[in-house]
Amino acid sequence: MIALAAGLCIAIATIGPALGQGNAAAKAMESIARQPEAAGEIRTALILSLAFMEALTIYGLLIAFLLLGKIG
Amino acid sequence: MIALAAGLCIAIATIGPALGQGNAAAKAMESIARQPEAAGEIRTALILSLAFMEALTIYGLLIAFLLLGKIG
Amino acid sequence: MIALAAGLCIAIATIGPALGQGNAAAKAMESIARQPEAAGEIRTALILSLAFMEALTIYGLLIAFLLLGKIG
Amino acid sequence: MIALAAGLCIAIATIGPALGQGNAAAKAMESIARQPEAAGEIRTALILSLAFMEALTIYGLLIAFLLLGKIG
Amino acid sequence: MIALAAGLCIAIATIGPALGQGNAAAKAMESIARQPEAAGEIRTALILSLAFMEALTIYGLLIAFLLLGKIG
Amino acid sequence: MIALAAGLCIAIATIGPALGQGNAAAKAMESIARQPEAAGEIRTALILSLAFMEALTIYGLLIAFLLLGKIG
Amino acid sequence: MIALAAGLCIAIATIGPALGQGNAAAKAMESIARQPEAAGEIRTALILSLAFMEALTIYGLLIAFLLLGKIG
Amino acid sequence: MIALAAGLCIAIATIGPALGQGNAAAKAMESIARQPEAAGEIRTALILSLAFMEALTIYGLLIAFLLLGKIG
Amino acid sequence: MIALAAGLCIAIATIGPALGQGNAAAKAMESIARQPEAAGEIRTALILSLAFMEALTIYGLLIAFLLLGKIG
Amino acid sequence: MIALAAGLCIAIATIGPALGQGNAAAKAMESIARQPEAAGEIRTALILSLAFMEALTIYGLLIAFLLLGKIG
Amino acid sequence: MIALAAGLCIAIATIGPALGQGNAAAKAMESIARQPEAAGEIRTALILSLAFMEALTIYGLLIAFLLLGKIG
Amino acid sequence: MIALAAGLCIAIATIGPALGQGNAAAKAMESIARQPEAAGEIRTALILSLAFMEALTIYGLLIAFLLLGKIG
Amino acid sequence: MIALAAGLCIAIATIGPALGQGNAAAKAMESIARQPEAAGEIRTALILSLAFMEALTIYGLLIAFLLLGKIG
Amino acid sequence: MIALAAGLCIAIATIGPALGQGNAAAKAMESIARQPEAAGEIRTALILSLAFMEALTIYGLLIAFLLLGKIG
Repeated sequence: MIALAAGLCIAIATIGPALGQGNAAAKAMESIARQPEAAGEIRTALILSLAFMEALTIYGLLIAFLLLGKIG
Repeated sequence: MIALAAGLCIAIATIGPALGQGNAAAKAMESIARQPEAAGEIRTALILSLAFMEALTIYGLLIAFLLLGKIG
Repeated sequence: MIALAAGLCIAIATIGPALGQGNAAAKAMESIARQPEAAGEIRTALILSLAFMEALTIYGLLIAFLLLGKIG
Repeated sequence: MIALAAGLCIAIATIGPALGQGNAAAKAMESIARQPEAAGEIRTALILSLAFMEALTIYGLLIAFLLLGKIG
Repeated sequence: MIALAAGLCIAIATIGPALGQGNAAAKAMESIARQPEAAGEIRTALILSLAFMEALTIYGLLIAFLLLGKIG
Repeated sequence: MIALAAGLCIAIATIGPALGQGNAAAKAMESIARQPEAAGEIRTALILSLAFMEALTIYGLLIAFLLLGKIG
Repeated sequence: MIALAAGLCIAIATIGPALGQGNAAAKAMESIARQPEAAGEIRTALILSLAFMEALTIYGLLIAFLLLGKIG
Repeated sequence: MIALAAGLCIAIATIGPALGQGNAAAKAMESIARQPEAAGEIRTALILSLAFMEALTIYGLLIAFLLLGKIG
Repeated sequence: MIALAAGLCIAIATIGPALGQGNAAAKAMESIARQPEAAGEIRTALILSLAFMEALTIYGLLIAFLLLGKIG
Repeated sequence: MIALAAGLCIAIATIGPALGQGNAAAKAMESIARQPEAAGEIRTALILSLAFMEALTIYGLLIAFLLLGKIG
Repeated sequence: MIALAAGLCIAIATIGPALGQGNAAAKAMESIARQPEAAGEIRTALILSLAFMEALTIYGLLIAFLLLGKIG
Repeated sequence: MIALAAGLCIAIATIGPALGQGNAAAKAMESIARQPEAAGEIRTALILSLAFMEALTIYGLLIAFLLLGKIG
Repeated sequence: MIALAAGLCIAIATIGPALGQGNAAAKAMESIARQPEAAGEIRTALILSLAFMEALTIYGLLIAFLLLGKIG
Repeated sequence: MIALAAGLCIAIATIGPALGQGNAAAKAMESIARQPEAAGEIRTALILSLAFMEALTIYGLLIAFLLLGKIG
């Protein structure tokens, strides 16, 4: 049961951030193409957002590891 | 059972904020590209929103930790 | 069972507000870019809306804490 | 069982209003940007709508509290 | 079982009206911005619609209270 | 079991009409804004449609009351 | 079991027609706004369609009553 | 079990045709507004389509009656 | 069990064709409005498509009758 | 069990092709309206596609008959 | 159990390809209408794609037949 | 159980690639219509993509055959 | 149970990448049609992306093979 | 049970990133076509994003391997 919890935990925690990152990245590249001289501004905003979203999955990974530690 | 609850809790709590952040970030970058001189305004609005949404997942993480503390 | 209830409670209560906030924030930034001189108006409307939606999750968090208090 | 009912009750009752509020708020800010001189009109319409929708979740919260009172 | 019924009843009865109200309110504000002189007409139509939709949730609340009365 | 049936009956019977009413109301207000002199025509069409849809939920409410009468 | 059948029967039979009616009504009002002199034509088409769709729910209501008659 | 079958049968058989009819009717009225002189042509096409779709639900109703006849 | 199979069989077999027919009919009427002189061409194409899709549900009806014949 | 398999088999096998055919037919009629002189080309392409999709459901019907033959 | 597997196998294997073929066919006819002189090019691309997608369902049919052979 | 696994395996493995291929093929034909002289370029890109996606289902077919080999 | 795991593993792992590849390929061909002289740039970007996504399914295939090795 | 967890873990962890990568890649190629001289900027942004999303699946793969190690 705990194994299932850990597996689902990291798997589901992956869906949202990935979709969000894909959406953000897609718009970032579209924006660079439209306004190449604002590329610096946009890149920092992109990395900021990607980091925020990556953090969400890291929380899930953290819980998954804690759960795995309880199986053994 | 509690393990499953903790795992699902943080995993599901990740989906909504991630999609919301992705959406907000995508529009932020599109807006910077359209109006580069308003970049300061937009960046503060972006960080404000990201923080609000990050907080939602933190609530989930908090409950997940409390649940984990009850397994041991 | 109660643990599962608490976990799902806060997790699901997170989805809607996050999507709503993301939507609102996205449009807010788009609007600032389109009409920079109305930024003050828009920012107060944004914070008002974010607060309303944050409150919805707080209700869920409240119930989750009450449920947790009943496990021990 | 009652705990699960209370948890799901407030959690699900959160989704619809949040999405609705997000939608309304997003359009409100877009409208302010398009017609800044109608901001007063729009703000009252926005608050009216947010209040109507907030009320929906309050109903759910009410039932959730009544259910919690039946566990103890 | 009855508790679950009451909880789900009000929770699900909240989703549809909230989305509908959000949609109606969003368009109302967009319309006010486009045609400020028709604001009176639009506001009465908005309140009429919000009331119709609020009534739908009230029906659900009514059934939920009746169900709660059968638990005790 | 009957309680669950009654609760779900009114709850689900609420979703469709609410979305439909929201959609109709949204377009009605948009149309008034576009063609203010046709407001009379549109309002009668709106009320006609809202009534048709409200009737659908009333059918569900009717069945729910009949079901409740069979619990006692 | 029969109660659940009756409840779900009318509840689900409500969703489709309501959405369809909302869609039809929305377009009808949009069309009246665009072509006010064709309002007569459009109103008869609207009522025709609403009646067809209302009939679908009436079928469901019929079956639900027959099922209720078998509980007692 | 048979009751549940009959109830679900007619209920689900209602969703598709209703959505289809709503879609068809919506476009029909839009078309009449755009090309009022083709209203005759369009009305016959509309009634033809509505009849085809109504027939689909009639099939479901037929099976539901046959199933009801097997309960008694 | 067989009854449930028959009921679901015809009910689900109704969804797809109805949506498809609605889509086809909607576009047919839109096309007639745009190009009234091609109405003959379009009507034959419409009836051809409706017949193909109606056939799909007839297959489902056939299986449902065969299943009903096995209950008695 | 086999009956349920046969019923679901043909029912589900009906959804995809119907939606696909509806989509194809809709675009075919739209294309005829836009380019009436290419109607011959388009009609052959339409019939070709409808046949391909009809074949998919025939496969499902085939399996359903084989399953029915195993009940008796 | 094996029967259910075979039935679901071919039924589900039908959905994706049908939607894909419908999408491809729809665009093919739209393209022929837009560029009638490229009809040859487009028809070969269409048949190529339809064949690829038909193959996917054939794989499912193959497995379904193998499963049926294991019931007898 | 293994039979169900094999059946679902190939059936589900069919959905994604079919939708993807349909999407790719649809755009390919649209692109040929828009830029007939780039047809060679586009056809090679199309076949490359179709092959990549076909490979995904082949993986599923492979596993399904291995599973079937374990039933006998 | 392990067989089911292996079958679902590769089947589900197929959906996302296929949709992603279809989306990427569709846009690639559209881009080639719009800017034929950038075809080289675009093709390398396409193959890079297809490879990244193909890798995701390969991970799933890897786990499926490891699971199959544990049945025997 | 652990096998199922591992299989689902990697399978579900594949969906989100694949869709996100497909979305990002699609927009990247569209942007290159629109602004070929910004291709360098865009390619680095693309690879950055793809790597972030690939990492999400790697986390899932990691947990899946750990789970597999616990079966033996």
